[in-house]
Amino acid sequence: MDERLKKQLEFILEIDKEKSIFRQTHLSDHGRNENDAEHAWHIAIMAYLLKEYSNEKIDIGRVMIMCLIHDIVEIDAGDTYAYDIEGMKTKKAREDAARERIYSLLPDDQKKELQNIFDEFEEGKTPEAKFAHAMDNLQPLLLNTSNDGSDWIEHQAVADRVYARHNKTKEGSQKLFELTDALIKEHIKKGNIRT
Amino acid sequence: MDERLKKQLEFILEIDKEKSIFRQTHLSDHGRNENDAEHAWHIAIMAYLLKEYSNEKIDIGRVMIMCLIHDIVEIDAGDTYAYDIEGMKTKKAREDAARERIYSLLPDDQKKELQNIFDEFEEGKTPEAKFAHAMDNLQPLLLNTSNDGSDWIEHQAVADRVYARHNKTKEGSQKLFELTDALIKEHIKKGNIRT
Repeated sequence: MDERLKKQLEFILEIDKEKSIFRQTHLSDHGRNENDAEHAWHIAIMAYLLKEYSNEKIDIGRVMIMCLIHDIVEIDAGDTYAYDIEGMKTKKAREDAARERIYSLLPDDQKKELQNIFDEFEEGKTPEAKFAHAMDNLQPLLLNTSNDGSDWIEHQAVADRVYARHNKTKEGSQKLFELTDALIKEHIKKGNIRT
Repeated sequence: MDERLKKQLEFILEIDKEKSIFRQTHLSDHGRNENDAEHAWHIAIMAYLLKEYSNEKIDIGRVMIMCLIHDIVEIDAGDTYAYDIEGMKTKKAREDAARERIYSLLPDDQKKELQNIFDEFEEGKTPEAKFAHAMDNLQPLLLNTSNDGSDWIEHQAVADRVYARHNKTKEGSQKLFELTDALIKEHIKKGNIRT
């Protein structure tokens, strides 16, 4: 087998491990914790279906691949819960090391290509990255809402911090931020999020 | 909330169930059974990384969404193992009913759009569908190879039927069929596949 294909297959097998990285979010119907691969699959489809709500014109193919790969670094770095203050302090360093190790399994051109897509997501400045972030935020909100806010109750979520995260959805989609805002307000009213 | 967005969100929540449809394939490192959402995520990324090996020029965005949605019908129809002769007889009828119920949750235009993409995959005639099928075949082969052929040993796989499935990879990618052929020959040699 030629070297290029061999490297591509090594990377493909390596990312299988993303299916064993579990998140704080639970599946609908009060199911088990969700893993990163399932989450990435879900938000890539969401992006395709909800693209009409993007504030700006987007290249949906690029948004989809961005959604699909955005959590690969967590194979090494682990999932850092959005409201874990201590974990958030070391997240960047852990993910930088993972970004280098895992993408280096690929041929050089594809290593650079995927790192660029990942960096674009992390920087969150392009229309595609903003919309991908909106999906990344909205998906656990939908699952959590379907579970009567159980993830927020468990983590004793506080409104200010919930908004600090979800306000960014506005940059990708004003329409989906309005939905987000309405859902958060409902959770506050029910006492699932503390004020 | 407007009716259109409401329908889109219902569909998005419904497909969460795909994370609970388990396949015969096992994760690498002799892991648990894989579910459909994880499999779909994996083959969508594979399509993006291996697109240079497609026999024909392909629209990679269309291949990715095809990969992502191709197993949604299994939420109702269940996973039919590729070598289950009895199950294969009723597969089409079960999947047709699922295709109608699940996609009808979407607004009409998106229902038609996704059903068209699914039908294109099933028919397997376009360059995009042929390449998506090549990914759908290659991915479990790679996992199974990483597990020393344990899925084939468990199911007492026979060479003729393994080839009957994998020969179709040729239509999407001659290069990846050569890889497939070499891997199957190795498994036959080791006695994991019976002749």
